[in-house]
Amino acid sequence: MADYKELWTSLDIDLEKHDQLCAVLPEFYGEIYMQQENRPEAMNYYNFVVSEIHGYRVQELADMRKDGKKVVGTFCVYVPDEIIVAANAASVGLCAGSEFWHPDGEKVVPRNTCPLVKAAAGALVGNTCPYFKSCDMLVGETTCDAKKKLWETFAEYTPIHVMNLSSMKREQDYINWQGEIKLFKERMEELTGVEVTAEKLSESTKLLNDKRRALQRLYETRKVANPPISGKDALLVTQIAFYDDPARFTQMTNQLCDELEKRIENGEGVFEKKAPRILITGIPMAIPNWKLHHIIETSGGAVVAEETCTGVKYFQNLVDESASTLEDHYKILADRYLKTNCACFTPNTSRIDDIVRLYKEYAADGVVYYTLPFCTTYAAEFKAVKEALAKENIPVINIESDYGLEDAGQIKTRLEAFFEMIGNK
Amino acid sequence: MADYKELWTSLDIDLEKHDQLCAVLPEFYGEIYMQQENRPEAMNYYNFVVSEIHGYRVQELADMRKDGKKVVGTFCVYVPDEIIVAANAASVGLCAGSEFWHPDGEKVVPRNTCPLVKAAAGALVGNTCPYFKSCDMLVGETTCDAKKKLWETFAEYTPIHVMNLSSMKREQDYINWQGEIKLFKERMEELTGVEVTAEKLSESTKLLNDKRRALQRLYETRKVANPPISGKDALLVTQIAFYDDPARFTQMTNQLCDELEKRIENGEGVFEKKAPRILITGIPMAIPNWKLHHIIETSGGAVVAEETCTGVKYFQNLVDESASTLEDHYKILADRYLKTNCACFTPNTSRIDDIVRLYKEYAADGVVYYTLPFCTTYAAEFKAVKEALAKENIPVINIESDYGLEDAGQIKTRLEAFFEMIGNK
Repeated sequence: MADYKELWTSLDIDLEKHDQLCAVLPEFYGEIYMQQENRPEAMNYYNFVVSEIHGYRVQELADMRKDGKKVVGTFCVYVPDEIIVAANAASVGLCAGSEFWHPDGEKVVPRNTCPLVKAAAGALVGNTCPYFKSCDMLVGETTCDAKKKLWETFAEYTPIHVMNLSSMKREQDYINWQGEIKLFKERMEELTGVEVTAEKLSESTKLLNDKRRALQRLYETRKVANPPISGKDALLVTQIAFYDDPARFTQMTNQLCDELEKRIENGEGVFEKKAPRILITGIPMAIPNWKLHHIIETSGGAVVAEETCTGVKYFQNLVDESASTLEDHYKILADRYLKTNCACFTPNTSRIDDIVRLYKEYAADGVVYYTLPFCTTYAAEFKAVKEALAKENIPVINIESDYGLEDAGQIKTRLEAFFEMIGNK
Repeated sequence: MADYKELWTSLDIDLEKHDQLCAVLPEFYGEIYMQQENRPEAMNYYNFVVSEIHGYRVQELADMRKDGKKVVGTFCVYVPDEIIVAANAASVGLCAGSEFWHPDGEKVVPRNTCPLVKAAAGALVGNTCPYFKSCDMLVGETTCDAKKKLWETFAEYTPIHVMNLSSMKREQDYINWQGEIKLFKERMEELTGVEVTAEKLSESTKLLNDKRRALQRLYETRKVANPPISGKDALLVTQIAFYDDPARFTQMTNQLCDELEKRIENGEGVFEKKAPRILITGIPMAIPNWKLHHIIETSGGAVVAEETCTGVKYFQNLVDESASTLEDHYKILADRYLKTNCACFTPNTSRIDDIVRLYKEYAADGVVYYTLPFCTTYAAEFKAVKEALAKENIPVINIESDYGLEDAGQIKTRLEAFFEMIGNK
């Protein structure tokens, strides 16, 4: 990585502590990613992005801000990036996937907080994540108890706007969500001084739909008999989608897809032929949380899709591009965003439909249900999911695990037994 | 207790398992309650209610149902009893305070669920609580992640209506809550066949305000230098308020207050003169969760008030009795119910104001912050409460504890040290 000390200093980063993080990531990434055989050439772009993870893009954001643009940090796929981009601002997904941030997080949130929220807390208050420090405003949402309370802590450190997501999906909840989107638009206008017009929203919708289409195309390649890309590479691409420049990301991902489609033509895959095909469902995986994919794919399995926020939930639904007025846009955005089926809703039976549908579409052999400790809603839904999948004769295993590697051996053993079971079906 | 086997059988109670519960409660109650010295005479009514806990009132509810009335079970102080009573139905608060129900609860909710929710789950699915089995409908609300998901489980067993409580308190949230109250009214009309008129709502408001006034009067007596009633007796009275017949409860509690006020005139208190006065803040305590009060009051402390749902949150705000139309009633009820400051809201700074105000009103010497394990929102608020109380020079100690008695000794030791500290202030 180039020397970004000056940049980081300008962002008020705790350099000494941050160096510890920078020191471990390359080796960690190398072990998990670079030892894969037969990787697509085009993954080099994403390797570069990771090698420059707190550098190149952070510099871009700093340059944007010098030009008067704003940067907004988000934590959830319910927050409409269309609004942010239409206000001429950049959106960066800020969830945090390393236990490195937990000691600092525990200074401001209870110990028994889910690793994702605790890491995000630590990343902000410990001054060790330049993305957090690049934001002119954060955007929270009321999706779960832990996040709901986290925003109160964050408000002590930085400007934050909270979108009030309903717990239900009735007609009035759709209307309320339109209202939240309108409020968010007004807040963005206030922050940026840029008027968010219907035309600008149409442009940002097109830009972000193109990104979604590229990801859809990528995931399409995972449906074939022997996918041309590993699950962990696909996960990395989606993770990077949350903070990369959207136009560049789309271009690079389409280049990757060109290569993958050629591989498919040539019958070139990355897995052993008999590898059990795994659909992961559950909580999002933020960089560098590659743990579950790595264990699965070094235990003989092939991850073919993720029913998660860092998977199909992020891009499977496009935004209708026909809106011509602001009111149209609010309605269309509300409809599209509330289509996503998160465990924060009650009831949330459509998530089960999604899992069953994806299992079939991706010709999966089994489902791994992934939760983080203290994630109440996803843990609670396991029972209903399991019962529904049993009716469809779909095997499922529940893996609850935090960011630590201590339980990796145990998870591996359980997964190997699961793969053997579904192999003998 | 009289023989209620027939009644329980008619309610489909698991008699054998239920007998185990009935076998332990009297001794448990005896140890905690009957060994107190100098108790008010009028506590005999509440002793009777507990001795008949799954009998007398359950029989009353059964008799009501025979007469065509409906019984509705609730779990939260945000659910407006006014609507239930105006529909000629009975409301019973159903939270569950014993670990007896946990093994059954763990069959349907994750192990790491808060003891209150887990106990409620077990009480229903294990068929060991005749109150649950007496209900024609349950009413849930979206106050926390664990309850939100519990309703989905409950829906498999019994009719349930869920009220969508917002996570915020802006103008639009008040309006939405009016809408939820209207929907609830319509659902109650459907259930009972009784039209809920403005007039009936005025009557039920009066009835329930009278109950609140009796509880306010009770709590008023705890403000004097040496309160005439113990904290645990006051807690018991409030706990019983949730499911007793409202008119009778009001009458009996006013009788208790007559006696307490005489005691005050005579300078008769139940505590040692130097007992540190404790304000408890935090999560609700459902019968038979008397653990914290018992430990405090057998360690030299005096509980003088509870900033909890089984304390002042339940009755401190009356409902304005001036409404004359249905729309008036919805608005007045929404305003009154949203005044309550639960940790499920973001932000919830008014709770801090409540704690500080109550601390002063009750001339408390210290605050005990009580949380149950896995209660994310109350655990998260501790930090802000502690910081705010420090500014006011108010000592606070955090006690997180489940329903088990294993940690009672450890809590006692910590509290004794806390009392010593605040005694030396």
